[in-house]
Amino acid sequence: MSATIAIVLFKDFEALDVLGPLSLFRAVPTLRTLTVAQEAHPVTTSGGVSMLPDTTFDALRDVDVLMVPGGEGIVNALESEATLAWLRDVGSRANYVTSVCSGSLILGAAGLLRGYRATTHWRSLDLLPLVGAEPVHERIVHDRNRITGGGVTAGLDFGLTLIAKLCGDEAAQSAQLALEYNPKPPFNAGIPETAPPEAVRRFVEATIARQEQRRKLLGKP
Amino acid sequence: MSATIAIVLFKDFEALDVLGPLSLFRAVPTLRTLTVAQEAHPVTTSGGVSMLPDTTFDALRDVDVLMVPGGEGIVNALESEATLAWLRDVGSRANYVTSVCSGSLILGAAGLLRGYRATTHWRSLDLLPLVGAEPVHERIVHDRNRITGGGVTAGLDFGLTLIAKLCGDEAAQSAQLALEYNPKPPFNAGIPETAPPEAVRRFVEATIARQEQRRKLLGKP
Repeated sequence: MSATIAIVLFKDFEALDVLGPLSLFRAVPTLRTLTVAQEAHPVTTSGGVSMLPDTTFDALRDVDVLMVPGGEGIVNALESEATLAWLRDVGSRANYVTSVCSGSLILGAAGLLRGYRATTHWRSLDLLPLVGAEPVHERIVHDRNRITGGGVTAGLDFGLTLIAKLCGDEAAQSAQLALEYNPKPPFNAGIPETAPPEAVRRFVEATIARQEQRRKLLGKP
Repeated sequence: MSATIAIVLFKDFEALDVLGPLSLFRAVPTLRTLTVAQEAHPVTTSGGVSMLPDTTFDALRDVDVLMVPGGEGIVNALESEATLAWLRDVGSRANYVTSVCSGSLILGAAGLLRGYRATTHWRSLDLLPLVGAEPVHERIVHDRNRITGGGVTAGLDFGLTLIAKLCGDEAAQSAQLALEYNPKPPFNAGIPETAPPEAVRRFVEATIARQEQRRKLLGKP
């Protein structure tokens, strides 16, 4: 099946949330990706990367797949009524509504996860109930036409999962081969359950203020 | 230990080769990353991403770690005497000389892998002997102060390996946790040995001309 995947960009999104799945999608000839932002200007991310969106909210009203990344900058999307309104509208008609990392909080703020099982970066799982979603601590969570991925690097597993659904297992396997995705992390510290407790404690403490800000934005009436 | 990691950019490098390790490095407070290119202009990559280098070859002569990505655009680096000369000079003094994916072919063209064991994207392993390197089909290959990674997504495993060497295991584990790198690919098709034979055949056939071009560039006297 051919499909158009629209990837939403906002100021200071996490570049890897987008580049992981996007690199996989681009290895599939029948998939078309479109990055979309509110305006036709380059969007900054962490790491000195900027990304020029392919199109704008006004110019794109129908997509097969909607994908929202996360990152430090999700506050910019959560505070943008224009972004949330566009997501609410386009998401209501998309075949799949998807996210990577804390992008699910944006989907939730747009009302798109109410009554759905969903996941997000492990640090933000406790915020999902604020938007009416049931948090699930899994790498990828698929509930009806919602597919949400865990933190940052989960975008690769998410990308393959989505390709398989859209284009079949063979297309996903070919993309995996092209990107030599045969992971061998030298440590087993990717989730709080297996990371050194001290590393978990430090990360949690360093992000208290950020999480409180998110909680307030999501909890507002 | 604090260290400066210089990441070399060239026209149409593979964005994920850089963004994987860079995102991990940025999670380590004592590491400083500098992207460097021949000129101070934005450098294009696949996927609509452009990256503005932090500095230029002329302004940077000493680095702790040199890192070279790969991608379709490696031909642009292989054909650039200025790039190869800079790498040869800076690499001769760096504490670590490293690469992701086909970036090792660029290191090799600069004479930096002669007599070393090294790896690269599986499709290009047979080209390493042209630059005097011994090809090793492993995810990460460490020989003295050379560390080379396999194709594209190997950059994540490479990044963690390098962080551990520079800053210790705890720093690497913290970065892994921050990016929730707990991979769970839905298929086991990341290397030719486990991918469907048809996927391998298609990829090999689609890249014959590109590989021949690389072979000619690397084999030139």
